[in-house]
Amino acid sequence: MITVGLLGCGIVGTQLVQLITDRAPTIAASTGVELRLGGIAVRSVSKDRGLPIDKMLLTTDAEALVADPAIDIVVEVIGGIEPARSLILAAIGAGKPVVTANKELLANVGAELYAAADEAGVDLLFEAAAAGAIPIVRPLRESLLGEDVHRVMGIVNGTTNYILTRMTDDGVSYTDALSEAQRLGYAERDPTADVEGFDAGAKAAIMASIAFGANVVAGDVYHEGISAITQGDIEFAKQFDYTIKLLAIAEVFRDGHGGQAEIGVRVYPAMVPDEHPLASVRGSFNAVFVEGEAAGELMFYGRGAGGLPTASAVLGDLIDAADNLRRGTHQSVPHGPRAKIRSIDGLESAYYIGLTVTDSPGVLSTVAGVFGRHEVSIRAMQQQDSGAEARVAFITHTANERNVQATLTGLRKLDEVSDVHSVLRVIGP
Amino acid sequence: MITVGLLGCGIVGTQLVQLITDRAPTIAASTGVELRLGGIAVRSVSKDRGLPIDKMLLTTDAEALVADPAIDIVVEVIGGIEPARSLILAAIGAGKPVVTANKELLANVGAELYAAADEAGVDLLFEAAAAGAIPIVRPLRESLLGEDVHRVMGIVNGTTNYILTRMTDDGVSYTDALSEAQRLGYAERDPTADVEGFDAGAKAAIMASIAFGANVVAGDVYHEGISAITQGDIEFAKQFDYTIKLLAIAEVFRDGHGGQAEIGVRVYPAMVPDEHPLASVRGSFNAVFVEGEAAGELMFYGRGAGGLPTASAVLGDLIDAADNLRRGTHQSVPHGPRAKIRSIDGLESAYYIGLTVTDSPGVLSTVAGVFGRHEVSIRAMQQQDSGAEARVAFITHTANERNVQATLTGLRKLDEVSDVHSVLRVIGP
Repeated sequence: MITVGLLGCGIVGTQLVQLITDRAPTIAASTGVELRLGGIAVRSVSKDRGLPIDKMLLTTDAEALVADPAIDIVVEVIGGIEPARSLILAAIGAGKPVVTANKELLANVGAELYAAADEAGVDLLFEAAAAGAIPIVRPLRESLLGEDVHRVMGIVNGTTNYILTRMTDDGVSYTDALSEAQRLGYAERDPTADVEGFDAGAKAAIMASIAFGANVVAGDVYHEGISAITQGDIEFAKQFDYTIKLLAIAEVFRDGHGGQAEIGVRVYPAMVPDEHPLASVRGSFNAVFVEGEAAGELMFYGRGAGGLPTASAVLGDLIDAADNLRRGTHQSVPHGPRAKIRSIDGLESAYYIGLTVTDSPGVLSTVAGVFGRHEVSIRAMQQQDSGAEARVAFITHTANERNVQATLTGLRKLDEVSDVHSVLRVIGP
Repeated sequence: MITVGLLGCGIVGTQLVQLITDRAPTIAASTGVELRLGGIAVRSVSKDRGLPIDKMLLTTDAEALVADPAIDIVVEVIGGIEPARSLILAAIGAGKPVVTANKELLANVGAELYAAADEAGVDLLFEAAAAGAIPIVRPLRESLLGEDVHRVMGIVNGTTNYILTRMTDDGVSYTDALSEAQRLGYAERDPTADVEGFDAGAKAAIMASIAFGANVVAGDVYHEGISAITQGDIEFAKQFDYTIKLLAIAEVFRDGHGGQAEIGVRVYPAMVPDEHPLASVRGSFNAVFVEGEAAGELMFYGRGAGGLPTASAVLGDLIDAADNLRRGTHQSVPHGPRAKIRSIDGLESAYYIGLTVTDSPGVLSTVAGVFGRHEVSIRAMQQQDSGAEARVAFITHTANERNVQATLTGLRKLDEVSDVHSVLRVIGP
């Protein structure tokens, strides 16, 4: 019998209690692991949690629950940095395996926790922290151990993917799609963490750390959000068989001489070719696309958020940790040196650039001249409207970020260009 | 240092040798597992394998290699039942972990091997046998341990998916697409195993066994192939926003009273709604779609075959087995009772039925009457051409297989029906 101490009983915690209650007999029959809940640390014992929770299990003293010798494994679903960090360190210090779904914590102080778990020789499992119910940590940590993974690229935020899908499929404006997502409970009242890419950035840091074995933190992630995306951008993307998605991308650059690799990690909206598997990930679904040298292209698709799917991923880790505990073993924890980050200036991408220009003879030649001077070559061009003020869109070949920024500065200085209204990265086929 | 004995050195084996040679230093640095090849059992020592293989490692005596005390782990990539089965049993008997990519073997005598590995307390890992480079065994066995998985549905044969994609995207005929696949090396000269669903059936049996914890063998799998699919079927599917895919489907039916569950497992071409993630799996790519109670819908996408991707999956297992050996532990092996199989007659599906009818007044009413008499209700109907011989297509609501077969028999007896030219299952949205 393995006794679980649960820290936090919000949406994920409540669903986890329900799952453990419902499924404990089946789990025992199929795996031999007998789980029971030994206590639940909450802020308020009297709060109604929607599902029936045995009040006898509730306590407001999380520290005492972690220290209780009757508790074998600690599950943390409080979220945020403190007190989650201290409680997890206390559990590890007491030799107790920990399961967490806390992306903010791992994306900021993960290295400290991994090191502590490694030293204590206990499990620290966090499948739910990277991409919700999508099993991505275990494949990256175990299945792809022998693989030379060079890029991980994901749609890892359901709110923004819902908004972009509504804008693409139904022609809804950004503002209307956001209000709708808020009404449906997909988006928070303050949607900044989702729409500006902070949530996706935290997940990108965790995935980069696991995929490339170096410590990447949230602060390393460059990010742009989706709030500037217009129907015009979406329509243009469609004409060229692209779909706009908010992508989290982590890439490794090896120098080939055994020196420390550089890691580039960023979140931004990008035009994805329609035939790319990520283009068909719709609504609130998430997916992580992994490119390996030998395995080729892999994709993992599913629910990236939501109480029940997240609780399912936590339960998978919990059974694994319990099974390891019973066998006296534990998984290796990812720990690498502090990553050497390649800044966004040093990265390359193809670009979509949308301009508003005065419709006069020679304007295109002047504009093209600015691209050429900064070594950015144009792959496709299309004039969208005409009249005194015409909109022109360009897609470039792969170019250095620095050169593209210089091009944009040059374009903005032209009298013929009244506005640079859209700048989006374009993913290769 | 872990010494590996490799049985077989065909396409996968050769790529594995190359991968181990190239990546051993990186693997040692990142995981602490030091791998070396101790010997390779082959049929012919003199055969040219395309890549440089140290001739000193080659032997024709596979039994001696397995028994050699210097060999710590055995990797089997010979394929087929014997001598693979005896060699694996010998390795397990000698307490050596085994990694295999052999789907035919596991789909037929997997239960015997799992039981032997379980009794000996050694690893028997087989990620590459289920869906090539796509990590599906580990997620099903570990990540989804706490999950109530009720259906696994996959595109698990690259050859047939390539053929269907060419037919769908480029209007190529079945015969031409098959010839092309053969020219490109995607299809064998005798394509029966692929196009008639035997290969997909073996993978379905393995996935059903892992997902539902009961022993399902290849012979349990009902299968229909794709050789009867016409451009007419593809065009009709497109009009209704469906894509035709060869699906391997494993489903569990629980009686809710703790009795032994029934498992339904089959391979057939089916119409998949365009918005379903499986519809956009194109060319020689594979994907496995998993439906769980709490996790919701998950999909795992990648290369289902090919020497290098398969070798990558074998290498992942090999590192895992080596790491376990070093720690003195092993994974639990799936072993359940012989599955209770629900035959195809007892399964339900929606159907697409294409008929050629005489274009006379009242024919539709007569035809619809046959559907009605057998309790098969019609969801959509479309007349495709007109004239003396008209083609009419029906999509039904979910119906029992037995009733549909009775309907088809009834339709064939009608004077007004000159041909039942197409019968395909339809997947719900």
